[in-house]
Amino acid sequence: MKLIKGGVCAAAGFRANGIHCGIRKNKTKKDLALIVSDVPAAAAAVYTTNLVKGAPLRVTKAHLADGRAQAVICNSGNANTCNANGVEIAEAMSVLVADAVSVKKEDVVVASTGVIGQPLDITPIAKGMEALAAGLSADAEGGKAAADAIITTDTVAKEVAVEFTLGGKTCHLGGIAKGSGMIHPNMATMLVFMTTDVAISPAMLQKALSGDIATTFNMISIDGDTSTNDMVTVLANGLAGNDEITEEGADFDTFMRALNTVSIQLCRMIAGDGEGATKLLECKVTGAPTLEDAKKVAKSVICSSLLKSAMFGADANWGRVLCAIGYSGANVDVDAIDVAFRSPKGTVAVCESGAGIEFSEELAKEILLEKEIEILVSLGKGAFDATAWGCDLTYDYVKINGDYRT
Amino acid sequence: MKLIKGGVCAAAGFRANGIHCGIRKNKTKKDLALIVSDVPAAAAAVYTTNLVKGAPLRVTKAHLADGRAQAVICNSGNANTCNANGVEIAEAMSVLVADAVSVKKEDVVVASTGVIGQPLDITPIAKGMEALAAGLSADAEGGKAAADAIITTDTVAKEVAVEFTLGGKTCHLGGIAKGSGMIHPNMATMLVFMTTDVAISPAMLQKALSGDIATTFNMISIDGDTSTNDMVTVLANGLAGNDEITEEGADFDTFMRALNTVSIQLCRMIAGDGEGATKLLECKVTGAPTLEDAKKVAKSVICSSLLKSAMFGADANWGRVLCAIGYSGANVDVDAIDVAFRSPKGTVAVCESGAGIEFSEELAKEILLEKEIEILVSLGKGAFDATAWGCDLTYDYVKINGDYRT
Repeated sequence: MKLIKGGVCAAAGFRANGIHCGIRKNKTKKDLALIVSDVPAAAAAVYTTNLVKGAPLRVTKAHLADGRAQAVICNSGNANTCNANGVEIAEAMSVLVADAVSVKKEDVVVASTGVIGQPLDITPIAKGMEALAAGLSADAEGGKAAADAIITTDTVAKEVAVEFTLGGKTCHLGGIAKGSGMIHPNMATMLVFMTTDVAISPAMLQKALSGDIATTFNMISIDGDTSTNDMVTVLANGLAGNDEITEEGADFDTFMRALNTVSIQLCRMIAGDGEGATKLLECKVTGAPTLEDAKKVAKSVICSSLLKSAMFGADANWGRVLCAIGYSGANVDVDAIDVAFRSPKGTVAVCESGAGIEFSEELAKEILLEKEIEILVSLGKGAFDATAWGCDLTYDYVKINGDYRT
Repeated sequence: MKLIKGGVCAAAGFRANGIHCGIRKNKTKKDLALIVSDVPAAAAAVYTTNLVKGAPLRVTKAHLADGRAQAVICNSGNANTCNANGVEIAEAMSVLVADAVSVKKEDVVVASTGVIGQPLDITPIAKGMEALAAGLSADAEGGKAAADAIITTDTVAKEVAVEFTLGGKTCHLGGIAKGSGMIHPNMATMLVFMTTDVAISPAMLQKALSGDIATTFNMISIDGDTSTNDMVTVLANGLAGNDEITEEGADFDTFMRALNTVSIQLCRMIAGDGEGATKLLECKVTGAPTLEDAKKVAKSVICSSLLKSAMFGADANWGRVLCAIGYSGANVDVDAIDVAFRSPKGTVAVCESGAGIEFSEELAKEILLEKEIEILVSLGKGAFDATAWGCDLTYDYVKINGDYRT
């Protein structure tokens, strides 16, 4: 399993592009992305469980009913959600793609991200489609352009890819992600588009994705708000030439590892680039009586506004960690809990058996001033572990969301 | 039902005081409060459901097992939670009170609020007890001193009282509250101490309190963090001379209305004074199919970090409201939802039948620049209503909690 460049273009037979078409006022910000497979691909997706679902999700869900897709179109700057004509516009986007790159409109994944409740004008998308399709590239630049075009308040584009082998064939899996605010996944998550040249049946691809998100994208929280437009999709076009994966076994396990590697990298990138964030927080829970308890504790800690604020201030206020564990709903024995903070600067134990211990505030400060902080929680009650990712809560989060629409 | 002055001293036979004894470094900030009834009183309480429970709560729970109490001691500046000697210190506090004002130590309610995990030194409390007891006053000044002494990051003391009649007797009920951060009640809430001169049995007092919090203190959220030290207590000393309330009926209903009036006023004060808050947010939900659905929607809206940030920025971003309703877990029909914002400057409808409508951004801004904002949500699906209280998310919340311990 080797990390490589190329993002969604790392896999054979995928081309991508991203342009500024005019949905956003800022001309230096790309706002329309397109990913196309040379041949029809198996496709799988998971969607937000928010009852307010973006129109693009409804259209995508219908298009993927047959487990097949060949292209992904995604705009930023407008979520096309809570608009009377949302489905109509999302359908129109898929027709524009179908015409421009000669695929069936039912094989187009449609996604939108941005402000909710403002009608999405199809005009700039229609006008930009020719240039978008003409600029499709199988090189790393194509993938990067697509990654750039789907982000909103993100400060960096997020892409990752891996290379691995299946039955002697070299395979690739890559992905791009958008995610910065309104992130508290529940079944699905932010926007993530993945591509692979592995041959795998639609059913096994869906099984892999649904299994993967439980320990990856469902374990991130930026602000506790579950988005209306979340989805994660994977397109698998089979061009690596491996024997098609149609059941569980060694090949499926290898594919799961590749998927998991890409997902976790994207999770870390998303959490570290949370709206206004200055730090990536990673809560590693060990010793839980069940997996569910481990996950509840890890997510509760990562979601605590008080802990997030303390981490912004590099304040080793471990009482906030204990408090969040206490209200997590998990089965814990408070008197058995140990807590430590870790970063490249070292590790500082701050709580043992549920009570505070003496520690060097100087060392703690040095550790917490780093960009990536691990919060280590040992529950001392069993053999289950879980990790959750989040970020600190900062002035900039408030600033960004105090005036998001303008 | 008339609002009157006096807080916890409004009811006959209650004296109170608050002093600076030295738990806090800042000498201008009171840190120790005492409330005493002239005679033993019926007592009821509700406690946080956080598994990490402050030592004072454990001691108080044991003391109230017989439904009787006569005094309340509460310090700020240190929560006496997650310390090895916590129960010992809390017990010592009740002994100091018992000796100073001649009550049984088992009749003392003990509470602490402040930083978690730092041992609480009994010395300043022991040294200050004589002056604290000597200064007890039945006047409004006594109640105000106690209200001042229990607050932490609150910017104002919170007290309220009402006068009403039961069987021709004039009765009083008053309360003080501390609450600013770590507020997301679940069964109980922040610290609230109420006193009344009504005669009521311990069982009916507990019934009244448990019923009351479901629509009052359990409907506030400042930051989604459920505190470790929350409790609400009521002492009822019977000195009003009414016939003791021992069952449901007209007198019990009147008492419930008094309790509810005081609770709601305290809720509004607590929410409006949330850590760093510049605005009180009140989400009023109507037309839900069940009470549970109405409450879920109201709380979800009030808890959304994105909406709270938008309100700070006076941005009528109603998409945040729809989004929060969508992930609330309530049974709603998105296409039937109407949303409006209201304040003393007027009302602006922003969403009808789940979709955006044209509205004056100028009027919306003017409405949202006020200090008290109502978010009106009509679900159009039934006859149940609920209200939840919260506040905006501001730079100051992050600042306060970025370096809370110093």
